[in-house]
Amino acid sequence: MDGVTRIERSLETAVAMADAADAPPRLAAAMRHAVFPRGARVRPRLCLAVAAACGEDAPALTDAAAAAIELLHCASLVHDDLPCFDDAAERRGRLSVHRAFGVPLALLAGDALIVLAFQTLAQASEGLGARLPPVLAAVGQGVGVPHGIVAGQSWECEPVAALEAYHRQKTGALFAAAAAAGAASAGAADLAPWRIFGERLGEAYQAADDIRDVVAEPDEMGKPAGRDAALGRPSLALALGIPAAVQRLEELVAVAAQAIPACHGAAELRALVRSEARRLTPRSLSRSAA
Amino acid sequence: MDGVTRIERSLETAVAMADAADAPPRLAAAMRHAVFPRGARVRPRLCLAVAAACGEDAPALTDAAAAAIELLHCASLVHDDLPCFDDAAERRGRLSVHRAFGVPLALLAGDALIVLAFQTLAQASEGLGARLPPVLAAVGQGVGVPHGIVAGQSWECEPVAALEAYHRQKTGALFAAAAAAGAASAGAADLAPWRIFGERLGEAYQAADDIRDVVAEPDEMGKPAGRDAALGRPSLALALGIPAAVQRLEELVAVAAQAIPACHGAAELRALVRSEARRLTPRSLSRSAA
Repeated sequence: MDGVTRIERSLETAVAMADAADAPPRLAAAMRHAVFPRGARVRPRLCLAVAAACGEDAPALTDAAAAAIELLHCASLVHDDLPCFDDAAERRGRLSVHRAFGVPLALLAGDALIVLAFQTLAQASEGLGARLPPVLAAVGQGVGVPHGIVAGQSWECEPVAALEAYHRQKTGALFAAAAAAGAASAGAADLAPWRIFGERLGEAYQAADDIRDVVAEPDEMGKPAGRDAALGRPSLALALGIPAAVQRLEELVAVAAQAIPACHGAAELRALVRSEARRLTPRSLSRSAA
Repeated sequence: MDGVTRIERSLETAVAMADAADAPPRLAAAMRHAVFPRGARVRPRLCLAVAAACGEDAPALTDAAAAAIELLHCASLVHDDLPCFDDAAERRGRLSVHRAFGVPLALLAGDALIVLAFQTLAQASEGLGARLPPVLAAVGQGVGVPHGIVAGQSWECEPVAALEAYHRQKTGALFAAAAAAGAASAGAADLAPWRIFGERLGEAYQAADDIRDVVAEPDEMGKPAGRDAALGRPSLALALGIPAAVQRLEELVAVAAQAIPACHGAAELRALVRSEARRLTPRSLSRSAA
């Protein structure tokens, strides 16, 4: 089974937990709206790829870790899109959750998706208890305090935002968690190099996203462009200008590729890094580079 | 060490994870505001009491389970208080989190507290991996889909709210989780009777809360009274009237006490149930009963 099929199946199984007698049906619908149809699934693919590179031997736990990471990513998008933050009307080319279901249910759907990530890990870990603590810790670290994506988003509420910490936490942290959780699910003892690799990849991804927000065509984004400037958000592309930001992106991709720890799946991981970098470069810049 | 000291120390350790270099300081302050000074800590005390009744032998995990339950309760209060739900200005006799820190940070502090609950479990479970899956499952079930407190709150977003399901999920679910997680942290094999006991206790607690919302003096509540009527929320006291609701409360307390499974700590648990019932009865009703 290929990675995308595994990820979609795990997510479908997870979200189906919301469908039950005596359960509020609109909550389940809002959660499904947040998770499907699929986005790029960059983070769970990273999780699976790292697990494979580490000699994956507990695929149910790896699938759960990948699903948990993506559920937490989807939850953060739902909450970031709310009127008190980005007030985004669209996401992945359709209505944002609060535009489709209202603010109260969007708030709760995000909460429920956060919890569902951990429920998914609990369900997959029967008989694998010894593997669970490091996977749980890696996932929690990527989302929570002090340096996870919730902390990253919180910099938008501080009088002075630390740009480097903002990016590292808002995006890098979940990439680091995806890599570390994938490695932990495969029984890897030393997660630190995988965290570093994931964080580097996250930095490159964030730089690409900042650039796309400035120069990409709307149909490339699945969301409106120009939001960082409109919302006064910290942005590498706005801080450095496009040419320097593109150069920085290329450096970050190279750094990420070099950070892959020695393992038998290193070649596949390097290929994933390169294909992501290509996919995320706006067409206008690809043309000018060609 | 008594239960309250254990709980406060565990919560302090958990919330201190938010204090770190490069972490957004207002997020940590908002989380602390949500958790301290302490409320009644009913749910974590239940968790500790059940663990003791089951022959507690892994106190670090029990403490983490109790803290996790209380962190999730605090998170739910922060989110329920937001303008899109109750728009509550006060909580525990002081400003609600969004009044003190703004809506965006209150949203994120709630998210961070949810994640912190699971981070706390991960931290306490090193070397106790085999115990972790059932504890994690019990905690997740109390909060998430299909029947946890987030689902309970979501009934406020449905066109027709099922009163019984609303109460069982919005309050009973976290009591059931507190009891089951306490039992699981002590290695109990059969969690089902503990869940039922916790759920019954939660029903009694919700009935008492509904009554207090109608008849209690403001200084007994730590929050404004009359909110259920003002917000059109489902309420046993409003649905049945006070005399019938008080009778129902007494029945529910008796049912909860009877639901305590046979164990060597049963007497202490029964005493806790009775003292809670007394504590939660408004003074005006106690006087008229005396």
